[in-house]
Amino acid sequence: MRDFHTLSIRFLNGKLSILDQTLLPDQETWVDVKDPIQMASLILNLQVRGAPLIGVAAALSLSTYYQGGAGKEEYLQAARQLRDARPTAVNLMHAVDRMLQTQNPIEEAYAILEEDISLCKKMATQGAKLIEDGDRILTHCNTGGLATAGIGTALGVIREAHEQGKKLHVFVDETRPLLQGARLTTWELSKLGIPYTLICDNMAATLMRQKKINRVLVGADRVARNGDFANKIGTYSVAVLARYHHIDFHPVAPWTTVDLNCQNGSEIPIEERPAHEVQGYPRRWAPETASVANPAFDVTPVELVTSWVFDKGCLTQEELKEGLNRFI
Amino acid sequence: MRDFHTLSIRFLNGKLSILDQTLLPDQETWVDVKDPIQMASLILNLQVRGAPLIGVAAALSLSTYYQGGAGKEEYLQAARQLRDARPTAVNLMHAVDRMLQTQNPIEEAYAILEEDISLCKKMATQGAKLIEDGDRILTHCNTGGLATAGIGTALGVIREAHEQGKKLHVFVDETRPLLQGARLTTWELSKLGIPYTLICDNMAATLMRQKKINRVLVGADRVARNGDFANKIGTYSVAVLARYHHIDFHPVAPWTTVDLNCQNGSEIPIEERPAHEVQGYPRRWAPETASVANPAFDVTPVELVTSWVFDKGCLTQEELKEGLNRFI
Repeated sequence: MRDFHTLSIRFLNGKLSILDQTLLPDQETWVDVKDPIQMASLILNLQVRGAPLIGVAAALSLSTYYQGGAGKEEYLQAARQLRDARPTAVNLMHAVDRMLQTQNPIEEAYAILEEDISLCKKMATQGAKLIEDGDRILTHCNTGGLATAGIGTALGVIREAHEQGKKLHVFVDETRPLLQGARLTTWELSKLGIPYTLICDNMAATLMRQKKINRVLVGADRVARNGDFANKIGTYSVAVLARYHHIDFHPVAPWTTVDLNCQNGSEIPIEERPAHEVQGYPRRWAPETASVANPAFDVTPVELVTSWVFDKGCLTQEELKEGLNRFI
Repeated sequence: MRDFHTLSIRFLNGKLSILDQTLLPDQETWVDVKDPIQMASLILNLQVRGAPLIGVAAALSLSTYYQGGAGKEEYLQAARQLRDARPTAVNLMHAVDRMLQTQNPIEEAYAILEEDISLCKKMATQGAKLIEDGDRILTHCNTGGLATAGIGTALGVIREAHEQGKKLHVFVDETRPLLQGARLTTWELSKLGIPYTLICDNMAATLMRQKKINRVLVGADRVARNGDFANKIGTYSVAVLARYHHIDFHPVAPWTTVDLNCQNGSEIPIEERPAHEVQGYPRRWAPETASVANPAFDVTPVELVTSWVFDKGCLTQEELKEGLNRFI
C-alpha cells in the first residue's frame, strides 16, 4: 500500500494507524491497527469516529487485511463485523459493501479515501457560497478533519469560508454526552486559527435570542430520500431553536451519507449507547443506579432545513419539497 | 436558637450546618458554618444553592452571628457581603434586607425559614392541580428539598402530585455545566421513590417529538413584574422547545422570588461564572485555552409560559397579559 497521512488516519512504514480521538485534545496518540476486528472495536469505542471517516477507516483496514493474506472466509467475516459496528451511519455500510464487491481491495480502499477527500473539498466550495462575511455560526459535534479523511463537512465549509477571507466567529456546542465539540472541534478550530466560543448545549437558545448566532451548520450520519436526516443527538434541538429564532440551518454531507432505501427519517435506526456515558465517565457524577436514556443520534425532519449542502450542490427549501430528487 | 433539621440545612447542638451539595450524590457531608462570611463563600461555590434556600441560609447565618455577639458594624458588613454573593436570585437580597430591618434577628430568621417551608407547601398544592395522572414531566436543574427549606418549588409540585397517587414519570435534564439535575434531582427522586430517567439537556427535544414528555415544570431565580423570569441556563431553551411541540410549560416559584422593581426580564442581571466550569472541572476535557461563555442563568419571556404557579395561586396565559397584576 502507498503511504498517506491525514489528520486522523495514516499508512506509514507498513502500518495503518488512527489518531485516538478519545484522548484528544490533551494527548495525540496514534494507535496501530492490526486487523479489521480491532478496527471494529476502535469504531465502537469512538476512538475513530465521524460518519465519513469510519467508512474510510473500515475500507483501509480490510485492504491491509487482504494484503496481509487473509483468506476469503476471514475477509467476509471481518467485513460483516465492521459493517455492524455502528448502526446509524450509513457510510460505513456503503464502504464495506464496496470492499465486498471489488476484485481489487487495495485500489478500492484508496479510491474510497481519495473520493472522501475530494467530496469534502466540493462540499466546502458549495457550502461556502452560503456564508456571509461577519457570520456567527453555531456548530454541533465535530465535523472537521477528525470526522472525515478530508477537511470535513460542516467544519470544512467554515474552513473554506475563513480561507476565502470572510470574517467568522464559531459557537461550538460542547455536545454531550461525549463532548466531541468541547474536545475535538475546539482543537481543530485552534489549529486553524478560527475564533470560537465553547458553550454548553443548553446555552445556544439564549445566544440566538440575543442575536449572537445567525447561522447553524451541522453534519449528518444518514440522510433519507426525502431529506430527513440523522445526526448526533442534539441536532434536532438546534434545528427547532433555529427555526423559532428565524436562523438559517444547513446540514452538510457527502452523497455517500445518503441512504436511498430509507424513504424518511423514521426508517433510520438509532443507536442507544451505554448509560455510563450520561452518568459521567470515567468520573461518575450521577447516582450509579440512575435510569438513563442515551440515544446517540436524533432525526431532524427536512422541513427544518433551510438548505441542504451536498458535494453535488445545494438544495433549497423549495427544491426539498421533492426530497433529494434533483440529485437522484 | 431552636434546633431544626431540613434536607439541606440544620441547627443542632449549637451549630448551624449545611449539606455540601457539591459532594452529592456520593457523599453526604455536613459543613459547620462559623459566620456569614463563610456562608457567602459557601453560596458563591454552590455548596448551598437554590434561590429560596440561599435566602434562608443567609438569614440564619446572620442570626447566629448576631447571637454570637457580632457588633453592629460587623453585622452590617457581613450582610452586605452576603447580599452580593450571587447577583441573579432575588430571594437572597430580600432575606438580607429583612435581616437588616428587623429589631429581632433571631426571630426574623426563623420566620424566613418557616415561611419558606409554608410557601413550598402552598405552591405544591396549587401546582398539583395542573398535573394529570400519567404525566411525563420534564424538569431542569434542581428545585426540591435541596433548593429550598421545604419540599421545593417545581419538584415540590411533582412530589405532591405523586403523594396524591398520580402516576408520573420524570425526565431529568442533567443541567450542564454544574449538573444539578444529574447529581441532585436524581438523588431526591430516588429518595422519594418517584420513577425518573436522566437525560442530557440536548435530548429533551427529540423526546418531546416522540411524545415521551407532555409537560415541563421549572423553578425561577427572579421573576419580573411582567412575568418574565430568570432561571438556570437552559430553561429558555426548554421553554422554546415546549412551545414548538405544544407542551405545557409551568414555572413554579414563591412570591419571595418576585422583584417588583424589574419591569421585565431584560432588567435582571445575569451572573457570568468561571470558564473552568464549562471546560470540565475538576477533570478538564476542553483545551485549557478554549474561549468560553458561561452565563449561569437565562431569561424566559412570559409569552412562553402556559401558566405561572405561585404560592398565591396560578396565573393563566390570559391573566399573564397583565403580568403579575392579579397578585400585586
